[in-house]
Amino acid sequence: MYSFKNDYAEGAHPNILQKLLETNLVQQDGYGEDNYSREAKQLLKQKMDNPQAAIYFVSGGTQTNLIVISALLRPHEAVISAKTGHIYANETGAVEAVGHRVITVGAENGKLTPTDIQQVLQEYSLRPHVVKPRMVYISNSTEIGTIYKKSELEQLSAYCRSKDLYLFMDGARLGHALTAKSNDLSLSDITRYTDVFYIGGTKNGALLGEAVVFNNTLLATDFDYMLKQKGALLAKGRLLGIQFLTLFEGDLYFALAKHANEMAIKIADAMEAQGYSFLTAPTTNQIFPILPKRVMEKLAQKYAFYIWKPIDEDRFAVRLITSWATDENKVNEFINSLKE
Amino acid sequence: MYSFKNDYAEGAHPNILQKLLETNLVQQDGYGEDNYSREAKQLLKQKMDNPQAAIYFVSGGTQTNLIVISALLRPHEAVISAKTGHIYANETGAVEAVGHRVITVGAENGKLTPTDIQQVLQEYSLRPHVVKPRMVYISNSTEIGTIYKKSELEQLSAYCRSKDLYLFMDGARLGHALTAKSNDLSLSDITRYTDVFYIGGTKNGALLGEAVVFNNTLLATDFDYMLKQKGALLAKGRLLGIQFLTLFEGDLYFALAKHANEMAIKIADAMEAQGYSFLTAPTTNQIFPILPKRVMEKLAQKYAFYIWKPIDEDRFAVRLITSWATDENKVNEFINSLKE
Amino acid sequence: MYSFKNDYAEGAHPNILQKLLETNLVQQDGYGEDNYSREAKQLLKQKMDNPQAAIYFVSGGTQTNLIVISALLRPHEAVISAKTGHIYANETGAVEAVGHRVITVGAENGKLTPTDIQQVLQEYSLRPHVVKPRMVYISNSTEIGTIYKKSELEQLSAYCRSKDLYLFMDGARLGHALTAKSNDLSLSDITRYTDVFYIGGTKNGALLGEAVVFNNTLLATDFDYMLKQKGALLAKGRLLGIQFLTLFEGDLYFALAKHANEMAIKIADAMEAQGYSFLTAPTTNQIFPILPKRVMEKLAQKYAFYIWKPIDEDRFAVRLITSWATDENKVNEFINSLKE
Amino acid sequence: MYSFKNDYAEGAHPNILQKLLETNLVQQDGYGEDNYSREAKQLLKQKMDNPQAAIYFVSGGTQTNLIVISALLRPHEAVISAKTGHIYANETGAVEAVGHRVITVGAENGKLTPTDIQQVLQEYSLRPHVVKPRMVYISNSTEIGTIYKKSELEQLSAYCRSKDLYLFMDGARLGHALTAKSNDLSLSDITRYTDVFYIGGTKNGALLGEAVVFNNTLLATDFDYMLKQKGALLAKGRLLGIQFLTLFEGDLYFALAKHANEMAIKIADAMEAQGYSFLTAPTTNQIFPILPKRVMEKLAQKYAFYIWKPIDEDRFAVRLITSWATDENKVNEFINSLKE
Repeated sequence: MYSFKNDYAEGAHPNILQKLLETNLVQQDGYGEDNYSREAKQLLKQKMDNPQAAIYFVSGGTQTNLIVISALLRPHEAVISAKTGHIYANETGAVEAVGHRVITVGAENGKLTPTDIQQVLQEYSLRPHVVKPRMVYISNSTEIGTIYKKSELEQLSAYCRSKDLYLFMDGARLGHALTAKSNDLSLSDITRYTDVFYIGGTKNGALLGEAVVFNNTLLATDFDYMLKQKGALLAKGRLLGIQFLTLFEGDLYFALAKHANEMAIKIADAMEAQGYSFLTAPTTNQIFPILPKRVMEKLAQKYAFYIWKPIDEDRFAVRLITSWATDENKVNEFINSLKE
Repeated sequence: MYSFKNDYAEGAHPNILQKLLETNLVQQDGYGEDNYSREAKQLLKQKMDNPQAAIYFVSGGTQTNLIVISALLRPHEAVISAKTGHIYANETGAVEAVGHRVITVGAENGKLTPTDIQQVLQEYSLRPHVVKPRMVYISNSTEIGTIYKKSELEQLSAYCRSKDLYLFMDGARLGHALTAKSNDLSLSDITRYTDVFYIGGTKNGALLGEAVVFNNTLLATDFDYMLKQKGALLAKGRLLGIQFLTLFEGDLYFALAKHANEMAIKIADAMEAQGYSFLTAPTTNQIFPILPKRVMEKLAQKYAFYIWKPIDEDRFAVRLITSWATDENKVNEFINSLKE
Repeated sequence: MYSFKNDYAEGAHPNILQKLLETNLVQQDGYGEDNYSREAKQLLKQKMDNPQAAIYFVSGGTQTNLIVISALLRPHEAVISAKTGHIYANETGAVEAVGHRVITVGAENGKLTPTDIQQVLQEYSLRPHVVKPRMVYISNSTEIGTIYKKSELEQLSAYCRSKDLYLFMDGARLGHALTAKSNDLSLSDITRYTDVFYIGGTKNGALLGEAVVFNNTLLATDFDYMLKQKGALLAKGRLLGIQFLTLFEGDLYFALAKHANEMAIKIADAMEAQGYSFLTAPTTNQIFPILPKRVMEKLAQKYAFYIWKPIDEDRFAVRLITSWATDENKVNEFINSLKE
Repeated sequence: MYSFKNDYAEGAHPNILQKLLETNLVQQDGYGEDNYSREAKQLLKQKMDNPQAAIYFVSGGTQTNLIVISALLRPHEAVISAKTGHIYANETGAVEAVGHRVITVGAENGKLTPTDIQQVLQEYSLRPHVVKPRMVYISNSTEIGTIYKKSELEQLSAYCRSKDLYLFMDGARLGHALTAKSNDLSLSDITRYTDVFYIGGTKNGALLGEAVVFNNTLLATDFDYMLKQKGALLAKGRLLGIQFLTLFEGDLYFALAKHANEMAIKIADAMEAQGYSFLTAPTTNQIFPILPKRVMEKLAQKYAFYIWKPIDEDRFAVRLITSWATDENKVNEFINSLKE
């Protein structure tokens, strides 16, 4: 049984484990004050061409989302998200648990537009009887594999600024977005268009870890307190620093994401050649082919994947995810199985 | 200018003010331990035929909703509401502010059914990545003037019990529901079908005040602490006790609501006679006629009301609300204006 | 049995009930947008000589405290209070329930000094492992009847400003403080020395109601949302407006407090004449005489009061509170009982 | 410069890194559903002789504390802690941020007794104006290096049960407690005497990770939701499972703690031989010698440690911490430096 269920089925890229071994007994200060974390932050700033950024390492995506939102919003303020957004669909009410409504938009492709936001602002205008929308949360790539084009992000960013809304990008799969074939965004663009975003490690080769980047550094005020309060400040912060240092030495981070994308697209191409269609156009490492029940069941005997939803009586949309660790041989075998 | 904007434009029923005057200098214990509150609770239990109920007086609806929900739910649990529900549409995220998601259902008539709830349970099944629906919140009458029939409430109640969901009824306008012509529910039925509900005073003749009733008294455990913590325990709790005592001596509470309903239906009948239709069938003291722009604007010169939403280029749905204090002469004048 | 247990045993000053009667059927907008509230705010600004202040009416003290603190502090920030402070000793963790630590100082006389605050800042310096003290909460008069002198408030205020700490005064009994014999503070001084404070109505003649005053109006940003979210925005806001309008027409508010103080001091003087001592020097309407057990028990047969704490085997400190409604005849009777 | 500042200055025990390498490419389910986590839980249950326990892995101590407390307490309930307790002194108000007061007791040796708890219950008896104490939080070893004797824990446990208080033990340094010379408690005792406790990995050889054990399994109901909501459910939960599996295969966990203790006691013995005294009797891997300023400054040139507090004009209490990784050669060098 080979799994295409997610991009966190394996451990870490070997370079990371190697670096952990090498540095293991070097004494370091705790709570993110270690040299590796410091170096990793410097390196990231260079790669983003944003020397002023304030960077923090956090263990995982849900934690990052809840802390950033909790740090930025006042009690009566709310965040706008696509209905597929991770903060709405997959985080057990983490944002509500820190006191804020997640206002949803039924964006079919998982992406938000200025028009979406405008409609929310109109719906939420009867002050003070409604919450005050104050932040826009987007994911890139989205939870359904799509990506933002530069012009889309630029427009959304301009609209948010005109309405005094923070723009926050969940980059749990940012590597996959930025290495997609149709991508025209750079890390540096993202620092310009968003107020805060993060670079996901967990789903791209790290054991755990996300790097939160505040481009609007005023918003980072006292963020260290917030991390500690929410239980996100690891005593051995070195574990996060070492991983990001490794991932961003050379081009490893992007190479890993590119591999994941290529494996997904290879499968998608084979499926398309067989005449199958997709829920959303295959772009990154998550693809959503629509398969006849019989084909799906056959594949499920040898491969693990997630059944997304029924399409009609005979067909199902499924989700296949590839990762930095996906074995091309297994991909080839899968394609062969498909052809049978 | 005469207002049909809401049912809280005037002060209190004169009997209440009279009783406040009479009792003014009698010394009483504070924080709800006064004799008037005690008597009022006894009286309510008799009227509901529910001697075991645990009753508490609270200042207003938003406060009641947030305290009840906060008292009953654990941090990962959520409440289901119609999209028009007061807790979702009008309370500035009060429920989220105490940590819980409000899961909405787009119920067109403002009412929830077992099928609605079932769909939510299915959507929220991927434990532990989603919140756990644990309570169903309904309003009677609803925010758009509709009411629950006995069979509807019975079925919803049975379904909730089968799924271990609390059923909580917001009765800010319970008097209006129970005195509607088509109503077949009694106070006593409501104590049987719901776990907790409240009897609204503010919108039916009191200066302020809602009476929260726990039929499932286990759920009332430590509710006094919750009231105090959320700032709801008035030092002069007598103010609430005296009002409910007055409203439920004899049949005043229901007489007031009946008057409000009759005034609304009188207007609705006149409108129907003029050929106008309604967003929802006029039932209680809130009616939502659809008027041509010209008519609406003409009426707006002499009467205040709320524009609900545009229907098409020429027509608008408006909301008219009557109350215990609505002057029948003004209603007649309004009807005459309408005929012109 | 006559009660000296608290200052909320009776209803409201008759002028208030009279005004409620007179205005009862005048239609008004809801949620604090009524004319009475507007006028009352204007009147208060004049009395305080602070035309720029932002004023809001709230039902009670606990509610006011939790909303102001929740509105002003970020999640990692804390408020400093005397251990006797109402937010620490009497509000069921209302402040913690909105997420903030109350850091206490064991101030014996119930008052805080710059030295107290300095010690707290030092204790809480190990950033980011501790909360960040950001607000100083004081009460005037305090929960044990003492008051701030002008020079004390001035120094505390200057210290707070030098350390970027908000100064918040709980004025549940502000009337009693400002009419104490030894008082040298004016309402206008308080607007200069504090960032936000409130003028208590509940304990000085109103049925309920506190007037929150933001001198630092930036801090009032979006406070209306906060009120609504926490359930503090009464539908019939007129009830609060009418009361403050009545209390501040002429000098009623201060006359009522002065009466309360005089009654307390009359008792205190009689006790002192009998040779009894006090926990804190009698200053306002709360006095804490130390009585032999036998005397205490004898008085308790005819008068209700609160046993504060045992002093030694034979003596107890008790708390006697007088109010705007305290009957001087009863005070005289009490003094006679004492002499026996 | 060699550091005695804390027990998390190095990475992980080499066996852990080795096991991470070996298992790195084995595909596993995410979010704690991996085989390693499952096996580790089985192993722990055996070692504790508690087959019914419910066990969860969490990244760190602050996170564990806030989630356990948030999961167990209702909004008006509070937790009692020593003033030195980690939840009060070192976690940036994490417990208050989830809504609960931490009631402190000034326990000089860092330990709580039934008498302490009884006094708190008395202080917090004026229902409903005060929070309701519902949980007792203790640390073993404590934040100042002391440990609970079996009889102490037994009495505290019995008292808590008699008062319906949960007993929660923070075991961030449980290994060090259980391997102290004077210890007479076993893991199995702890499962009997506490409702919930945790076994700390971070400070005893893991990269990160604490194992929360519910002995009272009813209290674990829905704990998986709580973990996810607070951002504690790692996508690659294997990282925690693998570490606990390694630490509890054989006796590694206890061997590591024993080494840390021995190194600390070796230093303490040498200091005692030099005539220095201690704040608390050296027992585990944290010692608090009182040193003359001159000696302290001299040592500080070559060794890093924490200055705890000034004792008098000339002397300071310092904190020295050893760990599983402490090099005995460095300890010897330190002792030599001390002798000079």
